[in-house]
Amino acid sequence: MELIDGKKISLQLQSEIAAEVKTIISNGGKQPHLAAVLVGNDGGSETYVAAKIKACENVGFNSTLIRHTNEITEAELLATVHKLNADKDIDGYIVQMPLPKHIDEQKIIEAVDPAKDVDGFHPVNVGKMVLSLPSYISATPNGIVELIKRYKIETAGKHCVVIGRSNIVGSPMSILMAKNNAFANCTVTICHSKTKDIASFTKQADIVICALGKPEFLTADMIKQGAVVIDVGTTRVASTETKSGFKLKGDVNFDAVAPKCSFITPVPGGVGPMTIASLLKNTLLAAKKEIYK
Amino acid sequence: MELIDGKKISLQLQSEIAAEVKTIISNGGKQPHLAAVLVGNDGGSETYVAAKIKACENVGFNSTLIRHTNEITEAELLATVHKLNADKDIDGYIVQMPLPKHIDEQKIIEAVDPAKDVDGFHPVNVGKMVLSLPSYISATPNGIVELIKRYKIETAGKHCVVIGRSNIVGSPMSILMAKNNAFANCTVTICHSKTKDIASFTKQADIVICALGKPEFLTADMIKQGAVVIDVGTTRVASTETKSGFKLKGDVNFDAVAPKCSFITPVPGGVGPMTIASLLKNTLLAAKKEIYK
Repeated sequence: MELIDGKKISLQLQSEIAAEVKTIISNGGKQPHLAAVLVGNDGGSETYVAAKIKACENVGFNSTLIRHTNEITEAELLATVHKLNADKDIDGYIVQMPLPKHIDEQKIIEAVDPAKDVDGFHPVNVGKMVLSLPSYISATPNGIVELIKRYKIETAGKHCVVIGRSNIVGSPMSILMAKNNAFANCTVTICHSKTKDIASFTKQADIVICALGKPEFLTADMIKQGAVVIDVGTTRVASTETKSGFKLKGDVNFDAVAPKCSFITPVPGGVGPMTIASLLKNTLLAAKKEIYK
Repeated sequence: MELIDGKKISLQLQSEIAAEVKTIISNGGKQPHLAAVLVGNDGGSETYVAAKIKACENVGFNSTLIRHTNEITEAELLATVHKLNADKDIDGYIVQMPLPKHIDEQKIIEAVDPAKDVDGFHPVNVGKMVLSLPSYISATPNGIVELIKRYKIETAGKHCVVIGRSNIVGSPMSILMAKNNAFANCTVTICHSKTKDIASFTKQADIVICALGKPEFLTADMIKQGAVVIDVGTTRVASTETKSGFKLKGDVNFDAVAPKCSFITPVPGGVGPMTIASLLKNTLLAAKKEIYK
């Protein structure tokens, strides 16, 4: 069994990005610049945005944080979005979700210039991904693909079972794993809440991607010997073992499942740490105009 | 075994559309208007476009055919597209594919206003479909979904195996069948050229959608008793039985497979006739501004 070390790969990716930024700047190029829009002061959002800004600094990106209070109107937030779309120095930006209830999130997502949509949330980028055209792929699927590539996990002709059909993970993963390219070419089965007997599918799988958000859902009897298991779940459960009073639990019963696997991602330290690296990767692509000319 | 009669359902759908057009016009509304752009004089394209124009007449739509020679430049064709985007009387339009080699098809597709993209080819419409947002769904998947609905084929919790991963059929069908809605909710497996032992998957399937383009690929031993089989294949094979010298062959060995099925689409007369009805349906949605306000 080999542990897929997302933390290590994320740092590796970030140091590669940092090296590329150095080269760009030493060649007289512009410093990549990511902006983040943060509305209100939700604790989780504060933490995520702070981590993204910090990661920008680490790799040598310029970054801008735009804060609005919870009272901002939809029209005012749209004005911020239009300003960022027009700002030539900003290569890419994110609007941290969730937004206050009086703002239509989808409207904001669709107002972002697809060329600057480094979150990969705009329907144009989702559609281009499906059509195998160059696009920004969103953070979690992007990170999983990167892990599969870096660990040289064999995928061609393998059967990949994805559990969960969310717009953010399950659905794009099922699409990406079935594509005709070097890190995919899997036969893919997508399971979800309406699937009868999920175990009957996971037992057949060479690769299982768990993204349903049920702690310890996948048990050892549900997989075959030598399976690759990617755990996307991150549910907070109460814990007396930690200072914070909670623990992050994956969708996989790790201790029981791991011994049967050829590769497995832990939680935390697997898929999670890859998301920020994915965002930085997309921002670098934006700065280099590799997706949109 | 029940035969899925695409011809009958297509006519039914067209007469429903015709009735709705009458109501719209009698209420003082605008007559729906579809335009078709035809470049060159490829025989197949001529036939398809003529059939689409004829269908418009049948349901009471206004239609406009714009012809260009094969010598048209990309810039000139883009000018036509921009003109159609700006024309307030045109509700939707199609640019018949394929285009001459000196024109970038994807560039043309992406220049079409998504609100008028009744072919459902624009990445925005593909992305919105994936994200379960209102969108134009392209003709073949749209037609298959309609057949499933009209024949009240049970899908929730069923295992649907899609063979083929094309942008036009296999990939969107795999996405649509897995969605959380009344006519889907299937566990979906997508198989393709790199799948090892396709039969091992189809044997488990409650619903098989064949869209690989290999005549008579699916044989009776590959399905279970009572399966639903949807045949999207339309390969022209030489034939001494027809005046034209060829016959349309589906991906399914119909004579052997049909007796084992609960439902099956024939070729011709199954999925094929539904495509024009789908286009008309999208054009009506465009005229009613149901997808884009």
